[in-house]
Amino acid sequence: MKRYYSYENFRNDTCKLISEVKTFEAEAIVAVARGGLTLAHCMAEGLDIRDVQSIRTELYDKECKREELSLFGECSLKYAKRVLIVDDIADSGETLNFIMNYLRKDFPAIEFKSSALFYKKTSIYEPDFWINEADIWIEFFWEKDFI
Amino acid sequence: MKRYYSYENFRNDTCKLISEVKTFEAEAIVAVARGGLTLAHCMAEGLDIRDVQSIRTELYDKECKREELSLFGECSLKYAKRVLIVDDIADSGETLNFIMNYLRKDFPAIEFKSSALFYKKTSIYEPDFWINEADIWIEFFWEKDFI
Repeated sequence: MKRYYSYENFRNDTCKLISEVKTFEAEAIVAVARGGLTLAHCMAEGLDIRDVQSIRTELYDKECKREELSLFGECSLKYAKRVLIVDDIADSGETLNFIMNYLRKDFPAIEFKSSALFYKKTSIYEPDFWINEADIWIEFFWEKDFI
Repeated sequence: MKRYYSYENFRNDTCKLISEVKTFEAEAIVAVARGGLTLAHCMAEGLDIRDVQSIRTELYDKECKREELSLFGECSLKYAKRVLIVDDIADSGETLNFIMNYLRKDFPAIEFKSSALFYKKTSIYEPDFWINEADIWIEFFWEKDFI
């Protein structure tokens, strides 16, 4: 079972997410690439936040040991008090969990909150802000409309 | 005079841009935030490029002297041979010109090409790949649909 998630769906949900996130008064947004890039862009426009940065993770197969996440991209956030992390979906939750732990350790003076369009109940991490529960596979418009 | 640039317009043009850019065989994409983030995301999906990073510029008013561009965000591109820079529009062209010069100086072994949806004839810099000439003010859907 798959659900095609169109731009119109995205537009409606992103507007909801923006209005929920407003109270946090973030000064910067960190997008989790690739999935969170379009969402981060549109939220930044709606929230009037100019400072949008991106990071990404990759799974590495450490020779016979279990796979490990590695993080790419450096954030320059020293001036910020509140930073919003943006991803499309908390699926396994591994990525968001890893990134939130990493950022909180690296920038202990900054308050981080996370947001996503979708959250799966089986995820090990629940974003602070999310809109839909994902029970089937989501095909985001950016994954389908350009191939 | 303004032109609203809808998601449907964007989808069509981005598919064209993807097919033009394919011959370059980029291994990574650098998005110019904020304007280039959605385009970079969708192009990366269409081109099957996982490594998407972002940089952004800010104008600084250097006390009575003329405004100067500063660059934020570090790219880790050491492994790449060909990298595609993605922005929404080459308007004055100052941003793309600055970024291309910066990256070519910083990574002399990498071939960089630039792409944008719109190019203004008055721009000081012409992207390697572009789709539309902009003669009026473009209102991108991400600037209008979330406020």
